[in-house]
Amino acid sequence: MSAFLHSRFSDLEAYTPGEQPRDKQYIKLNTNESPYPPSPAVLAALTEQDVADLRLYSDPEGAALRAKLAKLYGCGPENVFLSNGSDDILNFAFMAFSEDGAVFPSLTYSFYPVFCDLHGVDYRTVDLNDDFTVPVERLKDTGRLTVLANPNAPTGVALPLKEVEAIIESNPDHVVVVDEAYVDFGGQSAAGLIHKYDNLLVVMTYSKSRSMAGARLGFALAGRGIIQDLEKIKYSTNPYNVNRLTLKLGEAAVDSDDYFRKNAAEIVETRTRVTEELRALGFTVPESKANFVFIKRDGLDGGDLYRKLKDRGILIRHFSDPRIADWNRVTIGAPEEMTAFLAQVNTILKEEGLL
Amino acid sequence: MSAFLHSRFSDLEAYTPGEQPRDKQYIKLNTNESPYPPSPAVLAALTEQDVADLRLYSDPEGAALRAKLAKLYGCGPENVFLSNGSDDILNFAFMAFSEDGAVFPSLTYSFYPVFCDLHGVDYRTVDLNDDFTVPVERLKDTGRLTVLANPNAPTGVALPLKEVEAIIESNPDHVVVVDEAYVDFGGQSAAGLIHKYDNLLVVMTYSKSRSMAGARLGFALAGRGIIQDLEKIKYSTNPYNVNRLTLKLGEAAVDSDDYFRKNAAEIVETRTRVTEELRALGFTVPESKANFVFIKRDGLDGGDLYRKLKDRGILIRHFSDPRIADWNRVTIGAPEEMTAFLAQVNTILKEEGLL
Repeated sequence: MSAFLHSRFSDLEAYTPGEQPRDKQYIKLNTNESPYPPSPAVLAALTEQDVADLRLYSDPEGAALRAKLAKLYGCGPENVFLSNGSDDILNFAFMAFSEDGAVFPSLTYSFYPVFCDLHGVDYRTVDLNDDFTVPVERLKDTGRLTVLANPNAPTGVALPLKEVEAIIESNPDHVVVVDEAYVDFGGQSAAGLIHKYDNLLVVMTYSKSRSMAGARLGFALAGRGIIQDLEKIKYSTNPYNVNRLTLKLGEAAVDSDDYFRKNAAEIVETRTRVTEELRALGFTVPESKANFVFIKRDGLDGGDLYRKLKDRGILIRHFSDPRIADWNRVTIGAPEEMTAFLAQVNTILKEEGLL
Repeated sequence: MSAFLHSRFSDLEAYTPGEQPRDKQYIKLNTNESPYPPSPAVLAALTEQDVADLRLYSDPEGAALRAKLAKLYGCGPENVFLSNGSDDILNFAFMAFSEDGAVFPSLTYSFYPVFCDLHGVDYRTVDLNDDFTVPVERLKDTGRLTVLANPNAPTGVALPLKEVEAIIESNPDHVVVVDEAYVDFGGQSAAGLIHKYDNLLVVMTYSKSRSMAGARLGFALAGRGIIQDLEKIKYSTNPYNVNRLTLKLGEAAVDSDDYFRKNAAEIVETRTRVTEELRALGFTVPESKANFVFIKRDGLDGGDLYRKLKDRGILIRHFSDPRIADWNRVTIGAPEEMTAFLAQVNTILKEEGLL
């Protein structure tokens, strides 16, 4: 830290992203990336001319991509906002809609409290139920910006759309953000409700089901007013927020919608197998609707499991939060990666005398 | 605007980027893009494997590119910060270093007051001298974050390094941002001073001289403390702020440093010709060290010239600021584009009875 940093940031604890190790090759099950490449249409989309055209700024309106996404989700381009990854949208939403403070579950995407601390937003959290479901009644009529990851992270547990709608309906004077980063793996999207509720902001990403984490592309769906507000913040920070290549690849991905749905279905199938096998090994595994599972084994320290797997070339995600010290989040990779993961878990359990 | 927007943003006036028209092909001299494509090494850099690897997040540290830039600028990787375009760095700097307010020239990059309004920063401005030079004495010992575009925009006028250093030296307790977006066209960079002054933040971009506006890549050079502060803000907003393809292309561009210096020299040569010819046509043209010229002709309204050229298929930049209503900013394009521009200006002057 320099001597020049604004004192309001001196205690700010930044978000810690999952490890991106460069020391060796791991089976990487720690950052919820897809094991499958983007669609063939995406792989074929870029030409040398596209690279040559990088001399020109990107379209700040992203008009072509917004039109395609609007068609896909049954809304107008004025209901679509594009960003450099969905974290950007969350950041803007915490800036823009938090005048009365914010509320979100105490166990959820750990970036939410960081955004609040960054922008000086007063926030409170509500504890999850013991089965990791969201306590719906406590997110009704909150009098604040209300933020809900659905499916939730790192638990993978999803809320039925009817309950999400009840939360939106009960907070007509405040924005309800539904963060649907993982919705394509079995969750129910609230996207269809944006025409019914002007306080709903649905946040989506290309990073998970569309296999484009490294392209940095997030988007939001909402009523025109909320989108205009997000545009105002964007044009006051970084008007050309999405680069030309990502815009073009994003269009190609929309054109091959079937491809990503097929991949998502395969991940769901692998998740079912992994869940069953882990439970057979004595793990507690809440029912996941995301591309990861959240796991705990009595008698086995969460940090130990993480380290032992890392030593064996498999990265999973362990969190520093002491409340979930017993747990790990494991991304659902390719079938053969998960077979290798399960084999190593089996070996570790035997070594520990737990099997 | 929605009913939900935080009241502190209700009067916020966002930045207006230059037109990016999609209606027809223009000779585009309005957003200071390079007329030359990125280097052959950049054009050849991307493989299908790079697109396939987009399933993985980018390296949040951008280690490979930072190492290359550090070598190029004679510093360590800990002195380099990467961002999604240099506007991101300016945004972070106005957030991070403005506890005592900010000061910058009254005629400069018009995004600076927007960042201040966005973050509630108290700012004051100092008027330029009549010849558009920066009043150096008034930027000394300011007691605030001090921001200087050098060369300045939209004037193109540069300050000698000795005077920039005097400003940095006189403000030891506050950050001095030197925004060097246009430095490669004849300005003197302050980059070599980062080891001498821990309060200096030099901001650079790939958008101009490196012909990569559409790739969105900015970088900053500074002492370790300032870089750590910028990292803290980045990891609290968007850790994966630069996408994989841009990181790779950015490396290729550093490897072909000679190519962009040759292009910059050609633009300087074209600028000299355009300046002379415009002056011969009766225009006032301050000596520019950037890839644009700032022009005014007695008897010819600035907005009129902009519109008449647009009707003829040539876009230049006219600003809404009434203090510079007589002026236009003209990007230096390819030699043949500038020949076409000068011919149309000649025709317009004749039609107006001014030649």
